[in-house]
Amino acid sequence: MKIAIQGEAGSFSHEAARRMVPGCTIVPCKRSVEVFDRVERGSVGAAVIPIENSLAGSVAEHFDLLLERKVFVQREYRLRIIHNLIAAPGVKLKDIGRAYSHPVALEQCRELFRRNPGIEPMPFYDTAGSVKHLVENRLRDAAGIAGRQAAQEYKARILVSGIEDDKRNFTRFFLVTRRRRVLPGANKTSVAFSVKNLPGALFKALSVFALRDISLSKIESRPRRGRPWEYIFYVDFLRGDDQAARKALGHLAEIADVVKVLGIYPAAE
Amino acid sequence: MKIAIQGEAGSFSHEAARRMVPGCTIVPCKRSVEVFDRVERGSVGAAVIPIENSLAGSVAEHFDLLLERKVFVQREYRLRIIHNLIAAPGVKLKDIGRAYSHPVALEQCRELFRRNPGIEPMPFYDTAGSVKHLVENRLRDAAGIAGRQAAQEYKARILVSGIEDDKRNFTRFFLVTRRRRVLPGANKTSVAFSVKNLPGALFKALSVFALRDISLSKIESRPRRGRPWEYIFYVDFLRGDDQAARKALGHLAEIADVVKVLGIYPAAE
Repeated sequence: MKIAIQGEAGSFSHEAARRMVPGCTIVPCKRSVEVFDRVERGSVGAAVIPIENSLAGSVAEHFDLLLERKVFVQREYRLRIIHNLIAAPGVKLKDIGRAYSHPVALEQCRELFRRNPGIEPMPFYDTAGSVKHLVENRLRDAAGIAGRQAAQEYKARILVSGIEDDKRNFTRFFLVTRRRRVLPGANKTSVAFSVKNLPGALFKALSVFALRDISLSKIESRPRRGRPWEYIFYVDFLRGDDQAARKALGHLAEIADVVKVLGIYPAAE
Repeated sequence: MKIAIQGEAGSFSHEAARRMVPGCTIVPCKRSVEVFDRVERGSVGAAVIPIENSLAGSVAEHFDLLLERKVFVQREYRLRIIHNLIAAPGVKLKDIGRAYSHPVALEQCRELFRRNPGIEPMPFYDTAGSVKHLVENRLRDAAGIAGRQAAQEYKARILVSGIEDDKRNFTRFFLVTRRRRVLPGANKTSVAFSVKNLPGALFKALSVFALRDISLSKIESRPRRGRPWEYIFYVDFLRGDDQAARKALGHLAEIADVVKVLGIYPAAE
């Protein structure tokens, strides 16, 4: 099965895709819109996208795309994020003067830079892309910061493993398909909706869940793309495609302007 | 008055600070933690920090820091984000082969790169920092993407103005001080709270506002730093330091584990 990911081969999305769909073929895309284009067009069987990191928060663009595009979330997965300092084979830690990575990854490895003041953090587009870059350009004085998968992909070497400051660093991924399919054991639903006025309206909207004893596991208001200070709400609730959930969603449609079920899937772990 | 900002002089935070506190002296800090350190220590009078962008979403780290640190939000401000292609004096558009900027800014100017395939986007730490970089290093084939303030700060030249794809691009800034002070006309409150279980608990928590006809303008659940899948809620509501708001907050304290008023301030616009 072909799986589109945003970013280079060897990225955390690649790692998540491999675990979610063992034996899959990765289709790396430069941009997230391209990932969604491919799913909609059917040139891949699915996409694997990061949706939320326990330290950095939500991936806003992916929430927007899930709302805009005709796709369906079929599964979720939680990946423990382990960063590694990776260099070309033969390069030693003492040779390293710069470490390339995505700004978010650099921020998550502050302690490494504090302990090694001779290594300068260098922002790069992509974690795995930084490793690709230094291998392709045969850099002998630079390293990349990325997941284990990147070292494997580009035949590079891990100099230091587990360099993330906070070990409780997880990213939640979605498997996104074109076709709506609810897997057996699905017990979690992601829904997006908008309400006109926020005062009582949001409260009323949430009542459709509370009155049915349906637990929420996430709520987030996001500015509506291009409409400053209008909001879309993203809510995850802990029910699959059952009677109570359907009634709650029907009730929600009475209250909210737009309601879109983004996916129904088995909760991770 | 000294105002700490994250990033280089000439950044959008600099621009927001100038508009919020005309005549202020900017203290650029490398990292957001340093900005908050300076406010708490009293080595600056205040900080100006971006909290939310209408396209990119919330600045998660700043929400976390507002919760953790002994500071108070005294004012908010909405800045229209206008990106410009900026180069050293004498450099012409046709000379440009690379454009440096923060990845978020590069993403917001896709159309420029589509129309000018000869210009390669290059990720950099900071929008204004990219302009500083090319002026300091006398680059003749590179530009930076940043606000007008950056061109002024580093005596560079704007080659193309207003290159952001979506004109409805606003960033909301907070003025953060050490001392709790509620300005006259304050009609908006930002509060953070956590609830143990999400089912009825969040609904109950929101009832303290709904039952008093208090409008919310934002709600967001954020993973609790270092505690995967525990959530802190950030809520903005449209009341100042009045009777109803105080009663609502007292009521909220009965329901929520942690309640922190992050600030009470006049709503922007």
